[in-house]
Parts: sequence; structure tokens; C-alpha cells
Amino acid sequence: MNELVFIGLGLNDEQGITIKGLEEIKSADSVFMENYTSRMPDFSLERFEALCGKNVRLVNRQTLEDENGKSILEAAKKGKTVFLVPGDPFIATTHVTLRIDAEKLGIKTRIVHGISIISAIVSLSGLHNYKFGKTVTVPFSENFSETPYKVIAQNKQIGLHTLCLLDLKANEHQYLSINQALRMLIAIEQERKLGAVTPDTVAVGIARAGNNNPTLKADFVKDLENFDFGEPPYSLILPGELHFMEVEALIAFGGAPTAFRRLIK
Amino acid sequence: MNELVFIGLGLNDEQGITIKGLEEIKSADSVFMENYTSRMPDFSLERFEALCGKNVRLVNRQTLEDENGKSILEAAKKGKTVFLVPGDPFIATTHVTLRIDAEKLGIKTRIVHGISIISAIVSLSGLHNYKFGKTVTVPFSENFSETPYKVIAQNKQIGLHTLCLLDLKANEHQYLSINQALRMLIAIEQERKLGAVTPDTVAVGIARAGNNNPTLKADFVKDLENFDFGEPPYSLILPGELHFMEVEALIAFGGAPTAFRRLIK
Repeated sequence: MNELVFIGLGLNDEQGITIKGLEEIKSADSVFMENYTSRMPDFSLERFEALCGKNVRLVNRQTLEDENGKSILEAAKKGKTVFLVPGDPFIATTHVTLRIDAEKLGIKTRIVHGISIISAIVSLSGLHNYKFGKTVTVPFSENFSETPYKVIAQNKQIGLHTLCLLDLKANEHQYLSINQALRMLIAIEQERKLGAVTPDTVAVGIARAGNNNPTLKADFVKDLENFDFGEPPYSLILPGELHFMEVEALIAFGGAPTAFRRLIK
Repeated sequence: MNELVFIGLGLNDEQGITIKGLEEIKSADSVFMENYTSRMPDFSLERFEALCGKNVRLVNRQTLEDENGKSILEAAKKGKTVFLVPGDPFIATTHVTLRIDAEKLGIKTRIVHGISIISAIVSLSGLHNYKFGKTVTVPFSENFSETPYKVIAQNKQIGLHTLCLLDLKANEHQYLSINQALRMLIAIEQERKLGAVTPDTVAVGIARAGNNNPTLKADFVKDLENFDFGEPPYSLILPGELHFMEVEALIAFGGAPTAFRRLIK
């Protein structure tokens, strides 16, 4: 049957995919994969091809954008075609256009979900999911923006946590570090003075979500600013109001100082 | 090695787990599973036990709460112990206490993430992840609360979408329907009159996320209220301001009326 199945690869390595995802690949006629919206640090294409028994055709941003996904759509007109995407296929909005184009051409589309950084980080932190507000991405300094600071301030005003994704250049293996992100936010604080990210603000840094040895560290910004998180990728949470169970979780899993207990309202 | 590994089962059925999750189970000394925080409609314990080659011990809420996870902690003191949880292990906060207790006893804990309903629904809808505000759960009418309505109104005021999880009684196979949830919200609107959920408001209903045949339907509340979504589980999105790409996605994937195009600001 001709169709286009978007499959999430999940996080970190080739074992991040679900059993269902792997089975779908095994019965596919064509398999494409992109590795530019996000990076899976321990992913080996060789091991993955051995696991699924298929040749996987890598597509980069240039190819996909230049030809508007033509080779993928052509394959999907002829047979079962799979497009592999790190994380969950549509948490980054990049591929929504490809899916719309396929549907307009009368090609049936389906999604086989993958683990997303969004839920993994919330889960790792021990913070309560329903207390997170809008998510934001902190860019590299050359794309400087006050938006992340404003989103954190807006969320805090209504007591909510902010998940900050930190920008990366997947192909150049460049990652914005937690330290750089904090310094950028502190610099904006000095201009805007909303009290959203001060040296005494609580923050939570996460490195290598999805890996067997992620680093989770909760501390005051002044102490977190120089903490060594080890290898990338990185994310950051700026909590709003903390529930006592959340504080206990940050102490138990994130090595937070017990002074955090005094923050509970 | 003695440790406690929390593994997410993902959505829908026994193939929702990752390869990594399955491998971890194979090397475990004891395997526990809870099936009360969420329901995986097509999950078969028999098939799952065949897949992982282990006996899986089911624990219910009563057992876990009565004994504070004692049998799991005892097993984890002796050897590698796995605790299987639908979705991602800590998106529901129920098990954070168990993890804290384990760490306090000096038992190493780890998480192997699973697909969460949170990211799956965002991904299915084609809406932009960074435009979602706070998430909320709509309860059954016996636990009536104005909170969901207030959260929707608050998110809308700043242009954000609201993901509404609909309550369920996993053991009784009872699910709050999208239709019931909309009627409850409309009833509160008639009292509060904030304009957050009127008959002309746009809404998106999702049934069976993670299944091969999910239902996604976007429409005005007055038309969605009587739409037949088929089998559970259910979720609901109340969008804030829509980007034109989001509208095109709702038309292409959610059968939204083209009148949605007039909503773009």
C-alpha cells in the first residue's frame, strides 16, 4: 500500500525508537531519515540499518527544502515510505508542510510517535507537568532575542515553570550551553529588571536527556552558571512557584541545596 | 546490580515501548507494572510477557499506596528492578514519591522514557508546540471544577493553545468524552462570560492517540459537540491564536472547515 509514515526515532541512540516504529520500517519499501532538526548523540546509522534490515537514505535540510520533499513524495506514491525524524516527528514544526503536501496529493499519512525532549525533560526534573507554561528556545548570541526572557517573566507572573530548549547547529555539532544561556538571560535582566532571572533565581539544568547518564542539576543561578554539565545536548528549566514535592524531587534527583525548602510558599 | 529503573510503556499497546526499554526488562531480576494512572487500550499482558520473556507483576493503586511501594523497594534492594508505567513514567506525578523514597534508601534510580500523551497530541494536531500554555485536566462532573475553563481563558488571553486531558477511571474503563467536556465548558461560559468557550470557538478533539487509526477532528464547538469520535481515550485542544500553517494543518489532518482560514489574524 502506498502511504507516508512519519516515525519518531526518540532520543539519544538507535534504541530510542519504539517496537512499533521498528516493525513499520521492516515492512517499508523506502526509508528516509533526516538528522538536522535535532541530534541523537549516540546514534549509529550502521547499527540502525542492521537493526531494521533496510538501507536508510539520509536527507539534509538543503535537499529537503530545495526539492520540497519531492523524492520522498515520489517514493510514497509508489509504495510504503517511511520518514524517520529524531524525537517525535512533529514537535518541531519543520515537517508539517511535507505532511500537508502528501495529503494534498492523496497520499495517506500516519504518525508513529517517538519520545520527545519536551516530555522527557519534564519527567526527568520531577516537576509537575501541569505547572509548565509556554516553552521557548534560547538562541545563539548571533540571533540574540529578548523573547526567552519575556516568556520566563510572563510564565513566572502566573506561577508557571518555563522549559527552555537551547539552540543547536546539528550538523556542526554546536550546542548553546546552559552557562551561556544563563549569562544571556542575566544580561537581559540587567536591562529589563523584571526580576525573572537574577543570581538568586532557582534554575534546573539538564544534559543528555534520554541517555543512561543524564545530568540534572538544580541550584541558584549564581551557582549553576559555572556548573560543568558535561557532554551535550542541554536544556534548562526556570521554575515558577514550587510545590513542596517538587522541591523534594529537585533535592533528591537534582542535588539542589536544602535551602530550596525555604522557597515554598 | 541493584537499582530501580522506571520504564515508560508509551501509548496504546505492548509495542509502544522503546527497544531500549525492552532490553532493560530482559536483564531485570524483578518486573512490576502499574496500569491505573492511564490505560493502554490494546495492551495485552500475555503478549507483552512473551515479548520480554519475563513474568510481570501487576500492582494496583491500592497496593502501591497501602504499602508505599514496599515490595518494589524490597526487590530493588536485592537486584535490578523494573517498574513499568504507561506513557512516560513521570508525566503523571504519582510515582515521584516512590523514586524519592528509593533514592533516600540509597537505591540508584534511572528513567527509560516512553512516549507521552502530551507530545503525541501536540504532534498529531499539527499545532505549534511553543504556542501551548499550561495543560489542564477536565474532571468528571462529580468532581466539577472551574479550573479548566479558567486555564483556557488565561491561555487565550495571551494567544496560547490549551491541551485538555480528559479524566478517566482506568480500572472501570470509564472515560470523559469530548462531548461531555465541551458541554461542561460551555456551561461555565454561561456563568463566567469570558468568551473562552462559546459555540463559535474553535476546538480540536483527538481520540486514540498512539493508535494506528486516531481520530482528529477540528471544528467549531457547536459542531464538534455532537461529533462521534469512536473509541477512547480522548483529549481536547482549545487553540488560542492560529498561525496560517496551523490552520492548513487542521484542514488537512483534522477535516476543519475552510472557514477556519478567516480566523487568521
